[in-house]
Amino acid sequence: MPNEFIFPTRVYVDDTDAGGVVYHATYLKFLEHARTESLRALGIEQAAIANNGTILVVASVNIRYLSAAMLDDMLDVAVVPTKVARTFVEFDQTITRAGMLLCKASIKVACVHKETLKIAPLAATTKAALDCWLTQLR
Amino acid sequence: MPNEFIFPTRVYVDDTDAGGVVYHATYLKFLEHARTESLRALGIEQAAIANNGTILVVASVNIRYLSAAMLDDMLDVAVVPTKVARTFVEFDQTITRAGMLLCKASIKVACVHKETLKIAPLAATTKAALDCWLTQLR
Amino acid sequence: MPNEFIFPTRVYVDDTDAGGVVYHATYLKFLEHARTESLRALGIEQAAIANNGTILVVASVNIRYLSAAMLDDMLDVAVVPTKVARTFVEFDQTITRAGMLLCKASIKVACVHKETLKIAPLAATTKAALDCWLTQLR
Amino acid sequence: MPNEFIFPTRVYVDDTDAGGVVYHATYLKFLEHARTESLRALGIEQAAIANNGTILVVASVNIRYLSAAMLDDMLDVAVVPTKVARTFVEFDQTITRAGMLLCKASIKVACVHKETLKIAPLAATTKAALDCWLTQLR
Repeated sequence: MPNEFIFPTRVYVDDTDAGGVVYHATYLKFLEHARTESLRALGIEQAAIANNGTILVVASVNIRYLSAAMLDDMLDVAVVPTKVARTFVEFDQTITRAGMLLCKASIKVACVHKETLKIAPLAATTKAALDCWLTQLR
Repeated sequence: MPNEFIFPTRVYVDDTDAGGVVYHATYLKFLEHARTESLRALGIEQAAIANNGTILVVASVNIRYLSAAMLDDMLDVAVVPTKVARTFVEFDQTITRAGMLLCKASIKVACVHKETLKIAPLAATTKAALDCWLTQLR
Repeated sequence: MPNEFIFPTRVYVDDTDAGGVVYHATYLKFLEHARTESLRALGIEQAAIANNGTILVVASVNIRYLSAAMLDDMLDVAVVPTKVARTFVEFDQTITRAGMLLCKASIKVACVHKETLKIAPLAATTKAALDCWLTQLR
Repeated sequence: MPNEFIFPTRVYVDDTDAGGVVYHATYLKFLEHARTESLRALGIEQAAIANNGTILVVASVNIRYLSAAMLDDMLDVAVVPTKVARTFVEFDQTITRAGMLLCKASIKVACVHKETLKIAPLAATTKAALDCWLTQLR
């Protein structure tokens, strides 16, 4: 796993709005796809987590939009973990286009029981893989 | 229940695309909201159907786009059942703006088991309510 | 205009995800609909703003998810302005269900030129209406 | 260009709904992404078409859903043109997962003037490229 995980993403018509730019909530979708792929690269499938009776949910998002993404753009969506706790993970993410920063985000993802939606510990394998990634970054 | 059920719908920025018009798949969402509200008006809640172990899924859509909906438009989304069978329902739907026809659709909705997704009979109360509505139309 | 603007919003199937709850980015859409309706209640139409050569874009979002919204929920989406500047506006928003707080957000909306996407002053009428609303809150 | 264009597509959480399956309107988005990529493979960029003052819009969709796509699925979205006319193109499309047919669609895409949304001839290069593709299929 390289230090920072980068997921390339194409902008399609449904990602844009009548302003001619990518709709602001669409960036959260792009960020989520990159997190999902970074977990998959670590061998963690969301479906497998769900089978264990827990799901990962977004607990908070802090995002700043600096420049607009447009139709047909190829974006690089980056992910790094910044904190791995017993029941949650924090990530720093960016979206860039040809090296130009379009947005920056800090996102907290929590582990919850699938049925009750109450906070739950991360699966041991998930936590270990994320801890390992975080360690490489230091 | 009047013969035709009409659900007023506002167009927001996320419904539009960079072409400046409503994205073609968004119309399917509007049509679905109107079907859901027509069932609710008949006393049928999707959550209650799910509690019975079945869900309603779209089996086919036949839609023609005649004129574009735009940002801020107030649309009228119309629903009438055209056939109520043991395991599925067919609806005719239109979307109009101030009486101008924007799109027409025929949609088949099937009842399936929630876990297996295999075809299942409609709940008796759902079928009875839809049959009653269909009868009023004749 | 009451101090706080409340926009009731129904949760439909397309707002939810396979976790059985509302998808985290969908809340941003609900928040945006409520802001749009609060501006409309002040007599400000987005289309009119666009005709003046500017558009309102989201510059930053800070959102905390406290409890999940579910299919069929009726939500109350609240808006209050907290700052009205020459080129941007800040809002505090909440989403509640029957008085229970589901999420809290602070959102900065900037005015930009439609073609260049460079920062632009808010239209005088937009700024005046927002200033007036903000004054009522004090 | 191979006879049939295939675009691989991953299913993410935002593509699914509370039924645990891909939302029915999301398939239209997948079909559109594949058409866009098939045009890109022919050297036709939507942005370039827009610069010529026209846009491609969906005029009709006829889709049958046979089996559900699920979270994390890798889908193959296929495109073949079936008719290339002066102002529109017709495509047949399928979505399969590991060879299993999930849905079938026939889609008509029309060329319209960007400002007036009135029917317009396809750009000569677009028409030529599509005609060439259609000829290879025979």
